Amino acid sequence: MTTDVPSRPKARAPRGFQDRRADALAVERKILAAVSRVYETYGFELLETGALEYADALGKFLPDADRPNEGVFALQDDDDQWMALRYDLTAPLARFVAEQSDSLPKPFRRYAFGPVWRNEKPGPGRYREFLQCDADTIGSDRPEADAEIIAMAVEGYGAAGLPPSAFTLRINNRKLLNGLLTAAGVGDSGQKLAVLRAVDKLDRLGATGVAALLGAGRKDESGAFTKGAGIASAAIDSVLAFVEAARETRIATLDRLAQVIGGSIEGDEGLAELSRIDDALTRLGVADDRAVFDPSIVRGLEYYTGAVFEAELSLQTPGDHGEPVRFGSIGGGGRYDDLVARFTGQRMPATGFSFGVSRLAAALAASGGGLEKARGPVVILALDGALMGEYFALAGELRACGVAAEVYLGSSGMRAQMKYADRRLSPAAVIMGGDEMAAGTVTIKDLDLGRSLAGAVTDNQTWRDDRPGQITVPRAEWLARVRRIVETAA
Amino acid sequence: MTTDVPSRPKARAPRGFQDRRADALAVERKILAAVSRVYETYGFELLETGALEYADALGKFLPDADRPNEGVFALQDDDDQWMALRYDLTAPLARFVAEQSDSLPKPFRRYAFGPVWRNEKPGPGRYREFLQCDADTIGSDRPEADAEIIAMAVEGYGAAGLPPSAFTLRINNRKLLNGLLTAAGVGDSGQKLAVLRAVDKLDRLGATGVAALLGAGRKDESGAFTKGAGIASAAIDSVLAFVEAARETRIATLDRLAQVIGGSIEGDEGLAELSRIDDALTRLGVADDRAVFDPSIVRGLEYYTGAVFEAELSLQTPGDHGEPVRFGSIGGGGRYDDLVARFTGQRMPATGFSFGVSRLAAALAASGGGLEKARGPVVILALDGALMGEYFALAGELRACGVAAEVYLGSSGMRAQMKYADRRLSPAAVIMGGDEMAAGTVTIKDLDLGRSLAGAVTDNQTWRDDRPGQITVPRAEWLARVRRIVETAA
Repeated sequence: MTTDVPSRPKARAPRGFQDRRADALAVERKILAAVSRVYETYGFELLETGALEYADALGKFLPDADRPNEGVFALQDDDDQWMALRYDLTAPLARFVAEQSDSLPKPFRRYAFGPVWRNEKPGPGRYREFLQCDADTIGSDRPEADAEIIAMAVEGYGAAGLPPSAFTLRINNRKLLNGLLTAAGVGDSGQKLAVLRAVDKLDRLGATGVAALLGAGRKDESGAFTKGAGIASAAIDSVLAFVEAARETRIATLDRLAQVIGGSIEGDEGLAELSRIDDALTRLGVADDRAVFDPSIVRGLEYYTGAVFEAELSLQTPGDHGEPVRFGSIGGGGRYDDLVARFTGQRMPATGFSFGVSRLAAALAASGGGLEKARGPVVILALDGALMGEYFALAGELRACGVAAEVYLGSSGMRAQMKYADRRLSPAAVIMGGDEMAAGTVTIKDLDLGRSLAGAVTDNQTWRDDRPGQITVPRAEWLARVRRIVETAA
Repeated sequence: MTTDVPSRPKARAPRGFQDRRADALAVERKILAAVSRVYETYGFELLETGALEYADALGKFLPDADRPNEGVFALQDDDDQWMALRYDLTAPLARFVAEQSDSLPKPFRRYAFGPVWRNEKPGPGRYREFLQCDADTIGSDRPEADAEIIAMAVEGYGAAGLPPSAFTLRINNRKLLNGLLTAAGVGDSGQKLAVLRAVDKLDRLGATGVAALLGAGRKDESGAFTKGAGIASAAIDSVLAFVEAARETRIATLDRLAQVIGGSIEGDEGLAELSRIDDALTRLGVADDRAVFDPSIVRGLEYYTGAVFEAELSLQTPGDHGEPVRFGSIGGGGRYDDLVARFTGQRMPATGFSFGVSRLAAALAASGGGLEKARGPVVILALDGALMGEYFALAGELRACGVAAEVYLGSSGMRAQMKYADRRLSPAAVIMGGDEMAAGTVTIKDLDLGRSLAGAVTDNQTWRDDRPGQITVPRAEWLARVRRIVETAA
């Protein structure tokens, strides 16, 4: 059947995009404010770049197809250049530094926060738009710059509200495994990449699985075969000894690593860097249990050139349906000395860290640390159209004291207005009808008290008749009364 | 000539997109914080929607071509649905309210801020990405809701730092002109739109030009002819009398309008609404010179259904090259009762206001209100690699007192390090070499003092020899000394 009614668009957010209301945003803003404060205390300055970048500036997503939307949201400008929404805050930083290099103080220390976009398949808890909050130091090759980034991350998580026991920074250095492989005769870069990929699966497959992937290959439960890196069995042993070299303290791990790595120039460099990172961390007050050396950390594949960091939430929390949820990584970073050189041809050392703000917010909420509900304003009920001016005057008096207040502006009756105030989580409702006006009084309802009693009393009729926490006072006293209620409610 | 060197991408931001550093961002953040606080005091709650919306949800930019990028940045999702970056914060709000209607308290009062994107030709001061900060009340048809929005805007501009004399809210009501035209026999909606377009040019063309556009048409200086609305000459007189009806006070303007409009139902409705807006504004303490009724305000063409608001910067400021710059509109809004109905088919009254944050920031900067430079951290000079741990300890002591501090992490010598601290606008540099270490002292350089003296003294050599504001103190005293410098610098 055809119809003449014009079709209306369906109201829905795009797949993988969220609408977030006050409660969720309050947690996020608290995190951003706390982390920003830490960054600024370390002398990092805020930078904001645009949401779109030219696709070639984003690097790994070059437009090799007609529409290059592999992993990013890309579109063509009217001059035919491909642009894409940034997928992280690091690529735009590299572009900015390359563009502005001459006018920037070096080292350039910047922090940034904002949404990033990934054109990936969305899923539960997996969005295509999410917040990042980064700090990076450009133009310093000192390992102390890495240490400082790690110390800021540790301090940032604490400032955001995570208890120290809930997270650990895990630190590794790309040069260690590279040096080990070179010393073991594995020089092919494709083979090295395969080794990294195998090591990255240690958590999931265990040492035996990784050993198979380092050698000939591995058949999984379904019978599917993954080709291995094909390195010699002595090299496999070295790699396994390496990834399991973590010990109780950073120093002990360094000692163990020195035995395992075995004297390649690159490996020794990596060890020396970690040693200086350890020194600086100690001077910065970062204890051995907050920031550990963990040779099994891989952290991405082709991007980092030296130290890498991963922040892991160790908290185990019950999910929506009672099952335990492991949050895993809540941030990470590392040293990337080649990213600016993509533009300039000149090496520019750089190191940084990125907070996964949304994941951290989810972690805080799950750990009970971010669950306060956003409170609503005091609601002045609008019971008599002729008194609207009076209602606005009452609201104005409250606002002048810094108390959030609103006049009910819908068209419903008293019951619905009370229900509205309740849904807004208002601390109090203010009632002034013709009677009160004539008598020079104001009626105030303490809604928190009402809510707590309503939880105890099952008979609604009783609750309404009792009018818990409702009081009528002379107009001269109303403001002090409401302020007292608001102060105890907050 | 061909070459084998791989081509490097050119580092550049896309046309019309800005990179903004700490100074510019500090002004913007101050504005957002101040305006948000005002909104929250009025009981508005924060909402954040995603950057992308389905194109059909954005309304006026339906995908009628293969790539519908007229005015918006659009791209096709992998399920072939067209999406676009939001071009304002109102369309996403309408979509959200339509989608979540049942679960929202009504009236729903929300504020929001964030970037919006317009795929238009960029120019000087004209960007394709800019910030908006909106407040809207959904579900109230009371004119008092409009008045409250206006009052918040006035308070918001003040909180952001604009002096009261620098801006005026101009208020009109669509129903007035509509009613007038209906009474004058102009019923055709195309003709009405042409009248609105003509009135919108009053500023630029004056009464004579507008009269021509209302009638047969107008030839400009270049000889180009614009076809007019073609309304009768009596109607032209009415329209001109209407657009010039503004008087000293809102009440006086209402009186004048009552004479001009001449008894159509819609016109009388508009007058009654303005009268109630005036009452509420007065009760909300908004004086006649802050919010005026101005019948010449048009504010967009097809979007608004009742009251419209426009905030105009009256400040006249010198531009970069000394020429005077008029900023014009720094925000606006109005009542849009049909926007949610696009999705639901049911009318949902709504009214709101949008701050043009970037324009306001530019206005504040131009008026001298947003010019403070972001201060850098105290810089601990790194003069001796063996003392890096000591330097970090010094920085840590400052941070523990809430003073921003950093250890210089580049590889340059002392002069370059001092220059770095100067470029960062650091209040002080801290110097501790081997001599100081051995003597148990710290040298502190007051950079503000140095800067102010450097401005007076032309002979650099003299300045360096005098070492103004440089002092060497026992280690036990250094922290108090630096804190005193920082406090007087801020």
